[in-house]
Amino acid sequence: MAESQPLWEVYRAALAGAIFTDLTHAFHPGQPRFSAFPDEERQLLFDHAKGDTFQVHRYAFAGQWGTHVDPPVHCVKGGRAVDDLPVTEMLLPLVVLDIRERVAISADATPELADLTAWEERHGRIPAGCFVALRTGWSSRWPDSDRFYNRSADGIAHTPGWSGAVLEELFERRGITAIGHEQIDTDPGQVTSRGDFTLEQYVLSRDRWQIELLTNLNALPEAGALIMASWPKAKGGSGFPARAIAIHR
Amino acid sequence: MAESQPLWEVYRAALAGAIFTDLTHAFHPGQPRFSAFPDEERQLLFDHAKGDTFQVHRYAFAGQWGTHVDPPVHCVKGGRAVDDLPVTEMLLPLVVLDIRERVAISADATPELADLTAWEERHGRIPAGCFVALRTGWSSRWPDSDRFYNRSADGIAHTPGWSGAVLEELFERRGITAIGHEQIDTDPGQVTSRGDFTLEQYVLSRDRWQIELLTNLNALPEAGALIMASWPKAKGGSGFPARAIAIHR
Repeated sequence: MAESQPLWEVYRAALAGAIFTDLTHAFHPGQPRFSAFPDEERQLLFDHAKGDTFQVHRYAFAGQWGTHVDPPVHCVKGGRAVDDLPVTEMLLPLVVLDIRERVAISADATPELADLTAWEERHGRIPAGCFVALRTGWSSRWPDSDRFYNRSADGIAHTPGWSGAVLEELFERRGITAIGHEQIDTDPGQVTSRGDFTLEQYVLSRDRWQIELLTNLNALPEAGALIMASWPKAKGGSGFPARAIAIHR
Repeated sequence: MAESQPLWEVYRAALAGAIFTDLTHAFHPGQPRFSAFPDEERQLLFDHAKGDTFQVHRYAFAGQWGTHVDPPVHCVKGGRAVDDLPVTEMLLPLVVLDIRERVAISADATPELADLTAWEERHGRIPAGCFVALRTGWSSRWPDSDRFYNRSADGIAHTPGWSGAVLEELFERRGITAIGHEQIDTDPGQVTSRGDFTLEQYVLSRDRWQIELLTNLNALPEAGALIMASWPKAKGGSGFPARAIAIHR
């Protein structure tokens, strides 16, 4: 395929007939949220039911609301905001790293380097510049807050998360662009329960970004899909609800 | 190019090296808005400047805020909401209909059927299922409300808009999927100034959607680009800030 092939032909031949899978939860007041955040408030400024010609909502929510993007400034003072991240990163090859079998055994499971090795034995080296999504199956618990946080009697949350070894391998040696996960946090729940967000700090301190609370990863191939992940351009925003969509066969 | 060509190869060969142009204004409190809407309110729930580990904003705005999507329910009681529109429509061929020369003569300019004919003489028939953006140059006035509304002494806004003849041709006979424009409304300012939103009602009553307040259309080819236009998935939402990105050569 030549560089010069018209994009409309590329679209027609390779993209229009592909499967588009929405990786985004619909958000609404009352859904699971970080305990220190207020709930979403939503009102109707104009309402068909009251005879208005238009229907217009006013929304009020914390930026880290539902499926959302965390830009570097969320963790790093002076870091890049949601409107600073380049649009060239909003369409990327998508790698799916699957640890559902391990999560079925323990809700505290995290990926190991052996998972990366096994992935690369099946599909080749993880390409630089890609988006890596962690498939845990956790999104099926949405929007049930109790099941999502999965706290034991001592108040500790038991949810899967990333591991430092795997993130370091992905960012330092594979040169990936971004990550995403089904959980509400980068770090596993046991760790965030004691106020430790080391892995989230790691990703954002590397000037990279992430999408949290992805869903429908179950439907995707481990390799070969593309992800369109973007978000509205809130000037200087420290996080915002995002839309993530996979294109695959 | 075969249907079965791996999407990562499609990306590498045809998309990764293309130009990505952001068609989205950064939004913020104080920007131009419909007069009946309250301004955006933004507060910091967590603030690096106060010693917090995280930076988290809370945003409050009307859905029709900055570059945004209007789903059918914005005008049609019971119509589709922002979370009902299919993700397959979030990547489309992009047609740019240019009326900047006419706008330079009169700020009240609208497209004519002759503009469609001339476009099709240059590029072939407008393809079914595409997104048509109206290029007027008006986005250069953002975020200056006075210049954006361009009111004469009698209070009437003088801004370009669509025309019924062209919209009908595009939706009824070309079968396009969606439209977008640089202005704040589908209808020209002279018409909206007297409370007439006929063309917006027309588009949404056809169960189609639109993106308002696009920018950077100047940088695009008239034919051959793709548009990624998506928005967060507000459950039952009647409008929401969107992200629109063109991919082109």
